[in-house]
Order: sequence, then C-alpha cells, then structure tokens
Amino acid sequence: MPGPSDSLDFRPCGVLTLTTDFGHKGPFIGTMKGQILRRLRSATIIDLSHECSVHWPAEAGFWVSRAYPYFPVGTVHVAVVDPGVGTSRDLVLILRDGHAFLGPDNGLLEPLCRDQDRWHAWKISPECLAKIDIKRVSNTFHGRDIFAPLAAELAAGRLRPANAGKPTRDLVPSILEAPARLGAKLHGVIVTVDTFGNLISNIDQSLLDSFARPVVSCGGHSFPLHTTYGQVRPGEYLALVNSFGVIEIACAERSAADGLGLERGAPVVVAEET
Amino acid sequence: MPGPSDSLDFRPCGVLTLTTDFGHKGPFIGTMKGQILRRLRSATIIDLSHECSVHWPAEAGFWVSRAYPYFPVGTVHVAVVDPGVGTSRDLVLILRDGHAFLGPDNGLLEPLCRDQDRWHAWKISPECLAKIDIKRVSNTFHGRDIFAPLAAELAAGRLRPANAGKPTRDLVPSILEAPARLGAKLHGVIVTVDTFGNLISNIDQSLLDSFARPVVSCGGHSFPLHTTYGQVRPGEYLALVNSFGVIEIACAERSAADGLGLERGAPVVVAEET
Amino acid sequence: MPGPSDSLDFRPCGVLTLTTDFGHKGPFIGTMKGQILRRLRSATIIDLSHECSVHWPAEAGFWVSRAYPYFPVGTVHVAVVDPGVGTSRDLVLILRDGHAFLGPDNGLLEPLCRDQDRWHAWKISPECLAKIDIKRVSNTFHGRDIFAPLAAELAAGRLRPANAGKPTRDLVPSILEAPARLGAKLHGVIVTVDTFGNLISNIDQSLLDSFARPVVSCGGHSFPLHTTYGQVRPGEYLALVNSFGVIEIACAERSAADGLGLERGAPVVVAEET
Repeated sequence: MPGPSDSLDFRPCGVLTLTTDFGHKGPFIGTMKGQILRRLRSATIIDLSHECSVHWPAEAGFWVSRAYPYFPVGTVHVAVVDPGVGTSRDLVLILRDGHAFLGPDNGLLEPLCRDQDRWHAWKISPECLAKIDIKRVSNTFHGRDIFAPLAAELAAGRLRPANAGKPTRDLVPSILEAPARLGAKLHGVIVTVDTFGNLISNIDQSLLDSFARPVVSCGGHSFPLHTTYGQVRPGEYLALVNSFGVIEIACAERSAADGLGLERGAPVVVAEET
Repeated sequence: MPGPSDSLDFRPCGVLTLTTDFGHKGPFIGTMKGQILRRLRSATIIDLSHECSVHWPAEAGFWVSRAYPYFPVGTVHVAVVDPGVGTSRDLVLILRDGHAFLGPDNGLLEPLCRDQDRWHAWKISPECLAKIDIKRVSNTFHGRDIFAPLAAELAAGRLRPANAGKPTRDLVPSILEAPARLGAKLHGVIVTVDTFGNLISNIDQSLLDSFARPVVSCGGHSFPLHTTYGQVRPGEYLALVNSFGVIEIACAERSAADGLGLERGAPVVVAEET
Repeated sequence: MPGPSDSLDFRPCGVLTLTTDFGHKGPFIGTMKGQILRRLRSATIIDLSHECSVHWPAEAGFWVSRAYPYFPVGTVHVAVVDPGVGTSRDLVLILRDGHAFLGPDNGLLEPLCRDQDRWHAWKISPECLAKIDIKRVSNTFHGRDIFAPLAAELAAGRLRPANAGKPTRDLVPSILEAPARLGAKLHGVIVTVDTFGNLISNIDQSLLDSFARPVVSCGGHSFPLHTTYGQVRPGEYLALVNSFGVIEIACAERSAADGLGLERGAPVVVAEET
C-alpha cells in the first residue's frame, strides 16, 4: 500500500470514515455527517463502525489502525470514543501513509504511531478552531461540533495539517499494550469479538515468524492453526490469521465466544508446540 | 442557523435524511434509497436514525426537530413512524428554516410547528401523487412507495412545495405534550435513551431561565446540574443540558438507565433548589 | 419494471448494493466500501441489509431477489453469506433485468434463476481476477478482497459480464425450496422476521390465484387475509400480502413473532376456506 509516508503532504480525496461508540440510536452519527456536508457537499462518508466498545478507546483504535489501508490514499478518518469529552484532553491529528486521522488524545490513535518514522502528529490548536470558524460548541458532543468540521476542512483541502497546531511526538499511550514476549511465549489479548462470535486478538501475524510450530491458547484451551473456517467441520474450533492480519480464534459456523464463554479481554498465548 | 424561515421558498441542496422505526433487518431502508436514486441519481442520503421506538411517532419527531439544523439548508427530511399506514391518515409536507419535512400526519412532525410564524404546511394531494407518477403503491410500505418518490422530486427541484397540496395550519398534535409549568415546578418526560444509557428529556434549556438554582428530579432521585460527564467521577450521576439543548440525566462512564431502572416515559421535574 | 432482460447488455449506473450477514460490529462493511471507492471514486453504495441470518444464505437471497427492482437499472448487487469462504466453492455473476448480481455459488442467488429465459450467469474465472489485478487475497474475507473489487470494475464499466468467466446454467440450488402444492394445500415457510416481529413467508401472491377464499395457517393458528395492519385492532393478528409481494403474518402494533412464539423456519400453509 504505497503512500507518501515520510512526507507532510496530504492530498485529500474527499472520502471520510467515521468510527465511534455511539451505536445507532438517535441522530448522533447523522448530525456529524450533516455538519460535514454543510462544509463539503461532495464528501463521501463511510461508516467504519459505530458499535465499538463504549468508553474504551482501544477497540476503535485497533480497528482504525487495521482498516485504513483499504481506503483511498487521501481519506480522512475520524475516530471518537471520548469519555473525557468537554474536559481538558487534547485533540490530535495524525498523518500516515497519505491518510489523515482525527481523534481525542486518549490513546485511541496511538497504535498508528508505534513505529519510528512513518507518522506525523499535531495537537489541534485553539487558533486553528477559531480560523475555521468553529463555534456553538456543546460540552458533550465534540464529534459533531469540532471533529466533523475539522475533518471536512481537511477533506476539502482548506486546512493543511501543518496549520492545525503544534507538531508533537508525545501522545497518550493506548490503554491496551502491544503483545509482549515473556521467555518462549508470546502474550496478547482478545481485543474484539465480531458478529459471528470470532475472538480477535491483537497478535500480528509477523510475531509468529519466530515460532516453528505455533500453538494458540486461550481460556484454558489450545487451538490448531488453520487457514480458513471451512478446513474444519462445523462446530470445531480453530485458530487462524484473519483477514486483518491478526490471530483469531473461531468455531466453524458457530460462535467461539458463546461456545468457550470468552470475551474481550481474555488473555491469548502463543507458544511452540511441544 | 439562518434560513428563509418566513418564506415559501425552498431551494433543494440534494441532501435527504431518513428517520424511521424500521431497524436494520431486511431491505426496508435500502429500497427507500433505491427509489430515491431512481429519480435523483445524485442524491446524498443520510440515515438520521432507524432505531426509533416502533409505533410511537414522538421519539422520531423529537429527534428530527432537534437534528435538522445540523444539515445544509435545502435538505429534505423524511420521517416514517406510521402505524396507520394504508388507512386514511394524511401525508404532510412542512417547510421551516429552509428545510423540508415529509411524514404521516400522526403528530410526528408537529413539534416543528409549535411556534406561530416560522413554518408552512401542506397536505399532500392525490393530484400531486398522480402528477409525479407514483403508482404500484403497496398497502404497508408508503416509505418506499410514496415518501421516497415525493422526497426525491422535492430534492430534485421538480416538485415545488406549493404544488404538493392544500396549505394547512391544522396538524394532528403529537402524542407527547410539551413540558408544562405547574405552580413552581416544570414537568417533562424522558423521551429517549441513547446507546450510553443517558436519559434524554423533552425539557429545553430555555425553560430553565426562570429558575435561579434548578434541581432535576426523576424516579425519586435528584440530580445536580453539571456541564459535562467528566466533571463527576465514573459511576456518579448528574443532570446536564445535552448537545441537543435538552435536560439529560447521565451516569459518568455508566448507563443511567440501567443504574436507575428508568426508561422512556419516566416523568422529569425541575424545581428551585430549597 | 422494464429492462433488457433477455440481453447480455449491462449498462452500469454507478450504484451498488451490499447484502451480508456481517452485522455492524467491526470494519467489515466499511472496508468493502473502501475497496470499491479505491477503484470507483464516484460509486454510490447502498446497504441492503447486513443483519441477514449468519451462515444461512437463503434469507439474503430472498431479500436480494425481492428488493432489486427498486433500484436503478444498471445497479450491481453484491451478496455475501459465505460459510465456505476460502474453500473451493465458485463465485458467480448473474445478469437479470439489467441488474448485475455477485455472490458465492452456494444457492444464495439461485432464486434469481428459477424462470427459464430471463437470466444469464457466469462462473468467475481466475483469469478474470488476474486481469483486474486482484491480489493480496485473504482466506476469510472475499467480500472485501474479491467481491468488492469485482463489483467496482463492473460498476465502472471496465469489466463486461461476458469477460468475467464461463457462462453457466448450472447453479447450486438454494437451501430453501420454492413453495409446493400438495393436494389442495400450498406449503411454504417463514423465511425472515422483520424489526416489528412480522413473520414473512416465501409464498408469492401469484400462488394465491388458485384459491377462492384462502386461509393462512402457521403454528397451529389460522389467520384471515387483510390488506393492511390498520384494518384490525391493535393486538389482533392478521395475514396479508406484504409490500414485497409475499404472505406475511402480523399483529397490529405488536410483534407476531413474540406473540405466537414463532420464528424463521416455521411452516406456513394456505388452504381453501371450509
């Protein structure tokens, strides 16, 4: 997925994505979109997910960091899981691989900034908000009142990232730590469960390279590594590297979460087969 | 939010919003959008909410009347919570602040018409439907078969509001009465609960002006008035004026609805602190 | 609904619909849309439904086959309920009434192919996928990695159906059989339940023509045939031909599914009134 990753250049393509914990009750997402359209009538706005775990920014950050490469270069990604709304937390803009990301500085977007050189970040300044004429800001819905207008100005090419505020390398870390190697074992965690009940971990496939015959364990069970669901019979369990490049525990044509009684937060261990 | 509020002028911008109680099962919303696109390929269609309380038009009406100012002037808002579909109820078109609204005449849109001079309304005539070539109308899905084509013709600028039917000032009142002052107390009701479990009332902030130190009560509890969730500790309750300008009862990082055992319909009282 | 039904001609209009069993958790639908926009920035993408029964292609196929006529001619409809993803099942393209349909060859799209002469079908060839530069294909998410790019190329007019692979008349049959006449009775099944709890069968209204006074039975109850919900009192049951042309069992302003304890799969019988 090529992009001007080491550059400050951002060439907006008019596409925006929204990721929140707002659910689908009430006009919360809808009015964010309305605010974007008021500033950029031609915007194409895509919902990434609005059923992220409430008040827990790590799931939204996981999905945004895994999903953005599937969008056109020049997309603006807005992510709002923001229990601190209306308090003094900062707002951040991140640039990476030609994509722009906006969110509260509460760890949500930090997974995009774990390598050294491929990202730039700015803390949004009050001057920037004043210049793009953001006013009538509520205390409880910055997604609609600040992030949506900011995203529209970025997507319209009227706001340049370098004018958004002060550059920073100092972001609040994610509440969810990266997987860690302890001795011969790799320790991660279930970060989300999908509609099918598949248990999705934060362990990237690249971390498997150091294992000759990796075995995945979770909740007291061990799972063989396969490549797709159809390789085992309906009702049988398996582990696999899923379509977003992380280890997943599944049950063919059933819900692994229900069957195993496991959910978000369950520890996952990878070890060498003995 | 300026607009030609006292004018019959409607200048469509090509944006439409949809608000229903259809949920997300089946192709009900999708086929409404398909019908709009068949008549206006360039339409931008935004979902306001489809998880409104079923068969209870008041919640949809509350949200439409609170959310429309966040959309571009010239938007067409379609709202369908319509237990009387296929019976003799009227269809109405309302114009307000440069926005157009379509819905069944069952009280849904009446909250838009509570002030004297800022709105116009028409009852859709059979002649209008014939002129825009609406046919093959089912008995049970006027959202797709009548409202979607009507909305598309309005959004395309091919149907002028004045040609939609007979002007009227006589709309079916909402099932939900406006908050009322009884003695020293103001009486309202919880009209909806959001994804976070926040209890949202129909009491507008302007009604608080007559109180020096207002206290909000609901379900036998009293709540201090704050400005945002982060001002109290996680798990503590508060009242606030929310981002749509009404009183809301919340619990920081928790669900007030679950914690208090309250839901839609619970009475809310505002009184002077004693 | 006229269309070049007996022709190989497909004139894309830039509209696509998506039907899946993915639900709304995670960025699965969103990344399908991102992939489409990367190839066709001007695409208009409509969600038909993403809450189809998981791992059971028949409900998705039912809705796609009933909903497509409400979209512009030239729409590309993508339907993915695909428990066999990553195994050797084929992918199919179907052309009918000027609409294009893409899905796995697991019976999902077969309801579109039950009449003799109104459809064409092709099995997607590896050469086609290579020609449109599909690579980096995961084992578990062909919706994003194969179907979305294919659909975008069709919608862009860069891929002609005749170049997609080998023509076929031999599709995997749907898991759900068409309604059957046994003696004087017509036997069908509840294929889906909507948000209101209405029980929707696969019995097309045309099959009622042979009955003078049809009576609908399901779950040990019989229901009179009416034309809309408002014709009976709230809480009373009825049968009707719904807005998609099939027999539905409903309860006015209540959930028939809850009230009767019935769900998807319940047998439905139509007989002559005695």
